[in-house]
Amino acid sequence: VTPVIHPRLLRSAALPLALLAMSAIGASPAPATGQSRTGSTREAWVDVYRPEAVSIAERALRDSAAWQRLAELTDTFGPRLSGSRNLELAIDWAEATLARDGLSVHREPVMVPRWVRGEERLEIVSPGPRALPMLGLGGSVGTPDGGIEAEALVVESFDALERRAAEARGRIVVFDVPYTSYGETVQYRISGAIRAARAGAVAMLLRSVGPVGMRTPHTGATSYVETVAPIPAAAIAAEDASMLARLQRRGMPARLRLSMGAHQLPDTASANLVAEWRGRERPEEIVAIGGHFDSWDVGTGALDDGVGCIVAWEVLRVIKAAGLRPRRTLRLVLFTNEENGLRGGYGYLARHRAELGAHVLMIESDLGVFPPLTMGFSGSPTARIRIEDITRVLLAPIGVDRVGGAGGGADIAPFAEAGGIPTLSIAGEMTRYFTYHHTAADTVERLDPRDIARAVATLAIVSYVVAEMPERLSDATARSTR
Amino acid sequence: VTPVIHPRLLRSAALPLALLAMSAIGASPAPATGQSRTGSTREAWVDVYRPEAVSIAERALRDSAAWQRLAELTDTFGPRLSGSRNLELAIDWAEATLARDGLSVHREPVMVPRWVRGEERLEIVSPGPRALPMLGLGGSVGTPDGGIEAEALVVESFDALERRAAEARGRIVVFDVPYTSYGETVQYRISGAIRAARAGAVAMLLRSVGPVGMRTPHTGATSYVETVAPIPAAAIAAEDASMLARLQRRGMPARLRLSMGAHQLPDTASANLVAEWRGRERPEEIVAIGGHFDSWDVGTGALDDGVGCIVAWEVLRVIKAAGLRPRRTLRLVLFTNEENGLRGGYGYLARHRAELGAHVLMIESDLGVFPPLTMGFSGSPTARIRIEDITRVLLAPIGVDRVGGAGGGADIAPFAEAGGIPTLSIAGEMTRYFTYHHTAADTVERLDPRDIARAVATLAIVSYVVAEMPERLSDATARSTR
Repeated sequence: VTPVIHPRLLRSAALPLALLAMSAIGASPAPATGQSRTGSTREAWVDVYRPEAVSIAERALRDSAAWQRLAELTDTFGPRLSGSRNLELAIDWAEATLARDGLSVHREPVMVPRWVRGEERLEIVSPGPRALPMLGLGGSVGTPDGGIEAEALVVESFDALERRAAEARGRIVVFDVPYTSYGETVQYRISGAIRAARAGAVAMLLRSVGPVGMRTPHTGATSYVETVAPIPAAAIAAEDASMLARLQRRGMPARLRLSMGAHQLPDTASANLVAEWRGRERPEEIVAIGGHFDSWDVGTGALDDGVGCIVAWEVLRVIKAAGLRPRRTLRLVLFTNEENGLRGGYGYLARHRAELGAHVLMIESDLGVFPPLTMGFSGSPTARIRIEDITRVLLAPIGVDRVGGAGGGADIAPFAEAGGIPTLSIAGEMTRYFTYHHTAADTVERLDPRDIARAVATLAIVSYVVAEMPERLSDATARSTR
Repeated sequence: VTPVIHPRLLRSAALPLALLAMSAIGASPAPATGQSRTGSTREAWVDVYRPEAVSIAERALRDSAAWQRLAELTDTFGPRLSGSRNLELAIDWAEATLARDGLSVHREPVMVPRWVRGEERLEIVSPGPRALPMLGLGGSVGTPDGGIEAEALVVESFDALERRAAEARGRIVVFDVPYTSYGETVQYRISGAIRAARAGAVAMLLRSVGPVGMRTPHTGATSYVETVAPIPAAAIAAEDASMLARLQRRGMPARLRLSMGAHQLPDTASANLVAEWRGRERPEEIVAIGGHFDSWDVGTGALDDGVGCIVAWEVLRVIKAAGLRPRRTLRLVLFTNEENGLRGGYGYLARHRAELGAHVLMIESDLGVFPPLTMGFSGSPTARIRIEDITRVLLAPIGVDRVGGAGGGADIAPFAEAGGIPTLSIAGEMTRYFTYHHTAADTVERLDPRDIARAVATLAIVSYVVAEMPERLSDATARSTR
């Protein structure tokens, strides 16, 4: 971490404000009656953690250390696609830096897929010729040498493709599906190539999954099935999908030439990185917190998911720096290969299956930290009440006051599902996240140091309390105090 | 023009609202006393044009014809760099389409420069390697085969370069100058290569001139002088300029490899396109209205300056379609080669020098049409009063109520300056304009059909009144009525 404060922090009054808010966590003395100051006994159990929460928040909010570390990661190593040298160099750096932070750290080897984009180009030949910005979809096959040239058939849905299936043969199907939500629109990225190939298309182009940007293509994984021969698949900008649709409506369908050098190399060695701040009394019980350290090969993987990794990392660093060592172990996991394989998540499950019963909570954030920050939680109703109590008493003062319905991330899902383990995540406003998601514009500039610092404070307080409270979160039915 | 209405128009209530506003132009009967309804005699002269203004506005605001024509131009021909086949095909299309609109049209040949971008690539070799988005600056020389590899020296101003001149030799100078205004920041694009070369640099990289986008480089013309050997010059995204600056501050200056195939070919034939709606009584007197039809070779030149051309074109079409034929000639000029040579503007001056005294007003808009729309005007105080009267009485009802201090554009400047001719333009909010300016994202999506329609209505009403009023605008001192 360099000592340079990000200019946005220097210019704004936000840091002092955050400190004021933070001090509000601990402002009111606990009532002598044993009633909490909210007038309810419900939250009494959490009142006792106020001093530690203040200490954690003071550490997390005092500077832009987390933003600086994220900038160092993304500036130095850039994108970190599975199988790339950049990812392995970044893992080396993280391992060394975690050790310098005083955490015990080790690698857990995982073999990962190695998809290589190669040279790629899309041209509108007629009317034209001119190049159109594009990004091959992750996992796509390449084109034959010399590319594929064919007329475009623009459709706005799978249903429209079915209706026009007779016209699709030998053409490049373009899905011009306006972005609604990620969950809905991403279906076209996942199975568009299969559907187009079934109709006899020679390639598939996708209107990028995300709000209209600056003629910005969004990559991401696509799928094939064994029963249909794979065709090349690429994303184009929303603007160009609209343009191709207009040309078709004018009776002037475009002729396109697509050339992609994409190919799959043999699996290669990578690793999950695991670091711990061992528990004081029950080191075998674990609060795990992580993110995925790999990214797509465009942008610098700052939002997706550099920030999730750095926030998780800072949670351990800040708790330790505050002089706190909770009852249970805090375990950081920087997962490899989320984007195109989830091998890191499955590798963690394979290696730690014996610890399924030892994980009391798993945390992963993979949705950016754009305000308003919220938390997501999945777990039993009694566990949810605990998380809500922590939020109301200790987190609302720093501006995080809502616990949504679904927590967790893709990497912790295999393990958490196998063990029935509660999962939690921090998330933010989604439109901005999906504007930058899987694009060249996924860089550290998108993120405000104050938001990252608040995310660290939030997850550090939650992690600390869950690691420190006498009961396990998952069986925390009693209203005990220390 | 296709009959397809842009979805944004169908979805919104704006078109009926515009029509309501438009009808307000003609709502009040002129007072019987000869006083205008504003209670002042100052504007009485313009009151008499209300019926024609209503008729023009009704035509201009009734549909999205102008947006559709701009979409057809930009979808079909894409970018229109001087010397490119696209530009010449677009000129052919415009000539044919203007003739179909019933306007007399002819070409006026102009030889234009032919700069070709070629293949280009920028890599950060260390730490890296990875590619950075870039755009060579227009007019730049290329690199030797194999490119140039050197360490970056990031400076934030010309002054900083002077202070560190000793370090610049053999390095790639990166100007990381945050965007303030176009006029201020563009100085680095224009003379950055000269300044860097003087200090011994082997290439110059520029933080793009514009607000931070989506890691979006902005191209534009750069300059050389005969006394300094030219070095290659390219724009990088704001995000990457910041990144290189951070690396340097961390004591890890970047090693870069720049490869550019840019080169200049011999001048080639192009043309200004001139179309007229001949005047009823004084056809030799001219109100000229135009835009530049060429663009940079990225994006589709929709804002810069397709929209200026189409708005000007629609002015003539709408006036004619409204059954109006003013006293003087309305002349449309679609200039070639503004971006990298201004040969169209100088060509017009050379060919029409005999008509210097015949031009009563020149109009060119080259700043987009982002609301709030305003007008700019340069001319004598008495002429300005006329324009302000027209604005207050006939344009304020459609939402254009301000006449700023500087009108005109680069293409009309040589002629207008030679003849002392008043100049006028329509302009809009500038931050959005310069966000897209000279980027791949300069596409028709940026523009709202309602704004284009209002720009057409505005300039058509101004053009009509100035072409119709008994006095010439430039000597319009008397307060006459028809």
